[in-house]
Amino acid sequence: MRQTSSSAENRRPTDNQQTFDRLSDRLFATRQHSLALAAPLTPEDMVVQAMEDASPTKWHLAHVTWFFENFVLKRHLDGYRIFDDAFNYCFNSYYETLGPRHPRPKRGLLTQPSADRVLAYRAHVDEALHALLSTDAGQSSEVARLLEIGINHEQQHQELLLTDILALFAANPLKPAYQPYPSKLDLSAPQPVRWLDYAGGIQRIGHTSDGYHWDNEGPSHETLIHPFKLADRLVTNAEWLEFIEDKGYGTASLWLADGWSTVNREEWQAPLYWQKTEAGWFQMSLHGLLPVVPAEPVAHVSYYEADAFARWAGKRLPTEFEWETAALTSGVDRESVHATTLRPQPAAPGKADSPKQLFGDVWQWSASAYLPYPGYKPPAGAIGEYNGKFMVSQQVLRGASCATPQGHSRPTYRNFFYPHQRWQFAGLRLASEID
Amino acid sequence: MRQTSSSAENRRPTDNQQTFDRLSDRLFATRQHSLALAAPLTPEDMVVQAMEDASPTKWHLAHVTWFFENFVLKRHLDGYRIFDDAFNYCFNSYYETLGPRHPRPKRGLLTQPSADRVLAYRAHVDEALHALLSTDAGQSSEVARLLEIGINHEQQHQELLLTDILALFAANPLKPAYQPYPSKLDLSAPQPVRWLDYAGGIQRIGHTSDGYHWDNEGPSHETLIHPFKLADRLVTNAEWLEFIEDKGYGTASLWLADGWSTVNREEWQAPLYWQKTEAGWFQMSLHGLLPVVPAEPVAHVSYYEADAFARWAGKRLPTEFEWETAALTSGVDRESVHATTLRPQPAAPGKADSPKQLFGDVWQWSASAYLPYPGYKPPAGAIGEYNGKFMVSQQVLRGASCATPQGHSRPTYRNFFYPHQRWQFAGLRLASEID
Amino acid sequence: MRQTSSSAENRRPTDNQQTFDRLSDRLFATRQHSLALAAPLTPEDMVVQAMEDASPTKWHLAHVTWFFENFVLKRHLDGYRIFDDAFNYCFNSYYETLGPRHPRPKRGLLTQPSADRVLAYRAHVDEALHALLSTDAGQSSEVARLLEIGINHEQQHQELLLTDILALFAANPLKPAYQPYPSKLDLSAPQPVRWLDYAGGIQRIGHTSDGYHWDNEGPSHETLIHPFKLADRLVTNAEWLEFIEDKGYGTASLWLADGWSTVNREEWQAPLYWQKTEAGWFQMSLHGLLPVVPAEPVAHVSYYEADAFARWAGKRLPTEFEWETAALTSGVDRESVHATTLRPQPAAPGKADSPKQLFGDVWQWSASAYLPYPGYKPPAGAIGEYNGKFMVSQQVLRGASCATPQGHSRPTYRNFFYPHQRWQFAGLRLASEID
Amino acid sequence: MRQTSSSAENRRPTDNQQTFDRLSDRLFATRQHSLALAAPLTPEDMVVQAMEDASPTKWHLAHVTWFFENFVLKRHLDGYRIFDDAFNYCFNSYYETLGPRHPRPKRGLLTQPSADRVLAYRAHVDEALHALLSTDAGQSSEVARLLEIGINHEQQHQELLLTDILALFAANPLKPAYQPYPSKLDLSAPQPVRWLDYAGGIQRIGHTSDGYHWDNEGPSHETLIHPFKLADRLVTNAEWLEFIEDKGYGTASLWLADGWSTVNREEWQAPLYWQKTEAGWFQMSLHGLLPVVPAEPVAHVSYYEADAFARWAGKRLPTEFEWETAALTSGVDRESVHATTLRPQPAAPGKADSPKQLFGDVWQWSASAYLPYPGYKPPAGAIGEYNGKFMVSQQVLRGASCATPQGHSRPTYRNFFYPHQRWQFAGLRLASEID
Repeated sequence: MRQTSSSAENRRPTDNQQTFDRLSDRLFATRQHSLALAAPLTPEDMVVQAMEDASPTKWHLAHVTWFFENFVLKRHLDGYRIFDDAFNYCFNSYYETLGPRHPRPKRGLLTQPSADRVLAYRAHVDEALHALLSTDAGQSSEVARLLEIGINHEQQHQELLLTDILALFAANPLKPAYQPYPSKLDLSAPQPVRWLDYAGGIQRIGHTSDGYHWDNEGPSHETLIHPFKLADRLVTNAEWLEFIEDKGYGTASLWLADGWSTVNREEWQAPLYWQKTEAGWFQMSLHGLLPVVPAEPVAHVSYYEADAFARWAGKRLPTEFEWETAALTSGVDRESVHATTLRPQPAAPGKADSPKQLFGDVWQWSASAYLPYPGYKPPAGAIGEYNGKFMVSQQVLRGASCATPQGHSRPTYRNFFYPHQRWQFAGLRLASEID
Repeated sequence: MRQTSSSAENRRPTDNQQTFDRLSDRLFATRQHSLALAAPLTPEDMVVQAMEDASPTKWHLAHVTWFFENFVLKRHLDGYRIFDDAFNYCFNSYYETLGPRHPRPKRGLLTQPSADRVLAYRAHVDEALHALLSTDAGQSSEVARLLEIGINHEQQHQELLLTDILALFAANPLKPAYQPYPSKLDLSAPQPVRWLDYAGGIQRIGHTSDGYHWDNEGPSHETLIHPFKLADRLVTNAEWLEFIEDKGYGTASLWLADGWSTVNREEWQAPLYWQKTEAGWFQMSLHGLLPVVPAEPVAHVSYYEADAFARWAGKRLPTEFEWETAALTSGVDRESVHATTLRPQPAAPGKADSPKQLFGDVWQWSASAYLPYPGYKPPAGAIGEYNGKFMVSQQVLRGASCATPQGHSRPTYRNFFYPHQRWQFAGLRLASEID
Repeated sequence: MRQTSSSAENRRPTDNQQTFDRLSDRLFATRQHSLALAAPLTPEDMVVQAMEDASPTKWHLAHVTWFFENFVLKRHLDGYRIFDDAFNYCFNSYYETLGPRHPRPKRGLLTQPSADRVLAYRAHVDEALHALLSTDAGQSSEVARLLEIGINHEQQHQELLLTDILALFAANPLKPAYQPYPSKLDLSAPQPVRWLDYAGGIQRIGHTSDGYHWDNEGPSHETLIHPFKLADRLVTNAEWLEFIEDKGYGTASLWLADGWSTVNREEWQAPLYWQKTEAGWFQMSLHGLLPVVPAEPVAHVSYYEADAFARWAGKRLPTEFEWETAALTSGVDRESVHATTLRPQPAAPGKADSPKQLFGDVWQWSASAYLPYPGYKPPAGAIGEYNGKFMVSQQVLRGASCATPQGHSRPTYRNFFYPHQRWQFAGLRLASEID
Repeated sequence: MRQTSSSAENRRPTDNQQTFDRLSDRLFATRQHSLALAAPLTPEDMVVQAMEDASPTKWHLAHVTWFFENFVLKRHLDGYRIFDDAFNYCFNSYYETLGPRHPRPKRGLLTQPSADRVLAYRAHVDEALHALLSTDAGQSSEVARLLEIGINHEQQHQELLLTDILALFAANPLKPAYQPYPSKLDLSAPQPVRWLDYAGGIQRIGHTSDGYHWDNEGPSHETLIHPFKLADRLVTNAEWLEFIEDKGYGTASLWLADGWSTVNREEWQAPLYWQKTEAGWFQMSLHGLLPVVPAEPVAHVSYYEADAFARWAGKRLPTEFEWETAALTSGVDRESVHATTLRPQPAAPGKADSPKQLFGDVWQWSASAYLPYPGYKPPAGAIGEYNGKFMVSQQVLRGASCATPQGHSRPTYRNFFYPHQRWQFAGLRLASEID
């Protein structure tokens, strides 16, 4: 979960009923979408924690609700009744200022409260949010700001819910499918990659508009970009298979030192969720165990692997600023790109004057470490704990994945993970210098 | 799970319809009892693994069923249809000879097969067992032997199911109760302990009768017992509180070296499941979080703690042979002693010419390491894997606990755990030399 | 050890005898200086490895010698006799392409070869280097390039030798001194800090001259610097004591999340080597255990601590580009600043129109992650393994410390360590935005 | 280090000058022998700790000296001057009652005090012991008792010194020899094993005479032994090679469960210090790396391996009581059997009416857990800390090894180690039931 310094702060047009209605609609649509995501799951599926990095579905559903209860309702709805005092302990994620909390690695032990009770909690909070929105206080710009944060926060957990369920199902010998694959797999070859040239120069980076953004997307500032080339599409499974067959996982000189020791310690031989069978390479996905599809973007690779692949290919990863530069000029309609399946999609053929697959397939590892922008200050108070506190030892990913909810992607968005982590829908796009 | 060399082997009186009927009755009663134990639990409670030593309820229910399927039905029921081929991988516990299996620490990830499907598995197997018992093959002494093992095996898992649920609920900040405590807690003081003298001499140890026993209870053999004294009742919570207040957990000289390093590393200050509150000491139990009851036997202590307590008290633990000697002469009616609650009970007042609380309160740590009896040989084949393979670094416990099912206790029974383990219902009884 | 792409490559003026003589002088002076650093130590002090990050003195002395043998003599001196074939295994550090090697954490087990034998190895190699320099081959620009690398490599290990000896002596309850403190400790208060303003703009970063530099200092390139302020001196022990007394180590909101978990796991309460006694705070140093000196720069702090301190002070750390900008304009005479003791020195009073203590006191944590400069390519071959392979998860430090040898510091130098490491002579200087 | 309750306590014949002289002679001979054992080592060899279980030679030399200083001189020599107050912290092993101490895993960091200073410490203490023995107090039975303990304690550390040096040299890629092998290796086949029958019955176990013994060898008591067979010699390397070639290390059914997981986790394929080369199997020893000698007893195996081998051979290990029974009736002259090399020796051919190789080759794993004898009480006070505190989770070894000093072996001696440990000179002898 990460926080914001909305540029809309204290400027909410209370006279603008339309804006308010849209916020309200998005709020309840988001709340409803979480339930839809959980619908294919049993209470058993929803309680278990696949690994320390992941959380149970039930925990996600409760935590985002606790967020609204704690940051919105307790403060702004007179007479709000706390649903259950024990939930602050159970469902606080990492807000040091909000008291002790259930240890993260033990979230999967919470068989109680039951899934049913968590759903009741959600209904209780939704009802209170409805009530709040009908009050004067509920129309304030401060409430609007907090609701906006809560919506975006819940959207982030919607993506985590899916990645965590995949981790859980992948650990199950029965290899269950979260949802059936809706069509026939297309095993044809990928489109050839084309290289786009960018001239560089002084570039404005970071969020500038009134729209929602997290605090770490600002302050907007200028940076100097050197000329670079960028691939018009993501690296594919077909290309990754070449890397494997060329002993990429066994060649020390391709790897960062930390990556090389991780590869050997963890015995990595392929992306996470890949397994070699007598019938060839298969990949566990939210649609179950399916053959590796050549033209699909590779997913579930770590930064170490992305970096090694780029070196093997004689290229490099783009910086987050190069990526943002390309995204700002691509003219892509983000809302239309989200996949209809929970699986990244092959790049469409056709004109190649701008990068494809910027949003909606996989998060794209950048060459940039996750650091504050010049002049960055985290917001005050508990709500402003954090994005900032993770600014060390992680790498920035840009774009959005097939698990990212609609409306939660933009060119300035900064995602971040440790270089060894690979349970996310993360892949890569290549870049290079201009010769 | 542990195995047997039934002395009844190949001697089953097939002409004895009464014996056969009793076996059949006990079989289905045992199968039914497992379901009764799971009845208070939700599917969520049944899927989670509290810690590596524990298993989920659902796993217990399926594993004991797999045992009947694998060792009885596959071999002896013509045309038996395997319920699900994947279950051999999922529900094998540790039989090296029966192929690869799901890793023990990951049993809690098996959200699928669902609890419903495991119940269907049980029904399928129970039906097949009914069918088997109506065939000629089902009346053989070999089938009787295997069913007897299966019954006893399932009984062991019934106890584990309860101890593992307690571990799970104790880790939950809501401190749920598996069942409500049926009466008012009796906080009166314990009966004073009385000391019983035993003369020692050559004593026959181990199982001799036709009744069921595990392989590790034999061969029956003679051993030389030196004169000893034995307490007529178990060590109580009241006495343990004195040990705590006398800084027992902070006094190095009372502890085995391994125990002392464990106490410090784990920061033990009291038995597992005890916690100090402003209202005094409480203890998590299957009835929820309740005050520590002075006259109840202490439970959930490790061997290290039991040994340190005995040293503090100027006594020692009895050897398993001393314990068995006392049990054989106590004349206790085992079937009547099992508690009506899932909590050890205070010793009854009254005559003290034999030890009380031998069975049905807590397992009792002995001073004996878990080793083979002279001439011990494990049975052949997979069914005969094990009891033997655990004979190192563990200590024997004798008796039976409040979680042990009716009919599963006897004076020659040898339970065993590592000296640091304390999630079992384990306590102690003191012994000493004759002055 | 880190590598270079000397801009002098293939351009060595073989006709320039003076340059050649200077190189030769510096080579043998450097070789001699390593022996001088080891002189106060016994063979026992020289063999032990204080911790995994550190290496034994004997290993340092042999490894730098192996470097000359392997990269210079084997390739360029006809008839060179390898001193001992086993040494390639023993004293290779991490060159994957040069075959298997003794595991790093076990360097301290090499009681043999003895210190005497390592000294003989050094003499053997020095003699061969003399011989090489009298040949034609020894006058080539390629040999000059390699010798320059070897000199700089040995200088890096000279600093490590001192930091590792300090780690060893600090772990010794006798708190031995590597050398006595040559004068009386000055316990007076530090000079007040003054703030210097920098206007920012397009700035050229990285090494441009013909002088020696490591590969990671280039390519030289332009970057955009925003206006900033920089403290004219380092943070002092006196200021650090205020941080401690203000519960800096116990205030979650000051810390990066990774830092906070490290502080708690490692139970950090002060910089490494500090200990509180009844007589106040003391600090283990190469001069033994001495009182903490208020005006001295704080040393042996991690990036986590440096970052938390800056946040506590309402400031931030400078980026490595800001630091380089300031260093380039400071006009400091680097060669004159090295301390006469192995302890950072208080800032001198006087004019404050440029930053003090840039070189020769402590390495200074920057806010920049250690990443490649635009267009960076590592040199080819084993000699060009590395600097590049460490470019993830580490932070850049700038400047030079009191343990850095004379002649081994410059404004473009990039040192790097993991954010938790603190056995180096590492401190900090504060920066901030222009208001 | 282990402690005693000498049966000679308070009964020392002060009028018996001869006894006193013998004690004095043995004391200084033992002190001198430690120096002789260290003579082949450099100060570098003496300071390093090969692994956590091992200690540096220098530490052994100092610790046994500290023992005399602390338990004898401080208490019984008026005006004794403590050599260095810091040494109590440095060289206390594990006496909880004697204050804090240097952590065991960090003993190898003590480069200071130097080896020279430790030798000076030894001389200082030896001189004081001489002085003590010339006083009246020095002739008391209490001093005699303590000196006897000190002698035996130092002898134990003499064996550890050798085993720990072997561990250190084995970790060195140069494979140094502690001493050259004095003769040609005899690669002939072992003598065939012969089986000796023992009738069993009531047997007195434990120490009964006036001679020195540790507390854990008593109280003497009767036990009931069942009839058994015992091999007349130790298991040889030739037999162990058969076990390896028969895939003994890869056959789960041969192993205890803890052993099997250890074999797999540690990837054991042979005894410790064995390595397979193109020229066949070699074994690191105190004589350097030498071919495995077929007729020599196997050494450096764990209890897990010994137990698995016995199962593979269709036999078992003897109990410690069976072993003692055989040793008591063997009529072996212990003092004559110690090897002239630091390597176990092949069994001599010839008459086979009693077991060979009882003492002086390898310690022999027994099937008995290390537990107190009936009525055992540890002595009071710090000197009486311990043997008792290790009585859990370990197995008894009987006999003595080629590294055990002369005069330190007897039929009742109980050595003990954890079942996974194998850096000791430990092997095995087979036993079985009478058919």
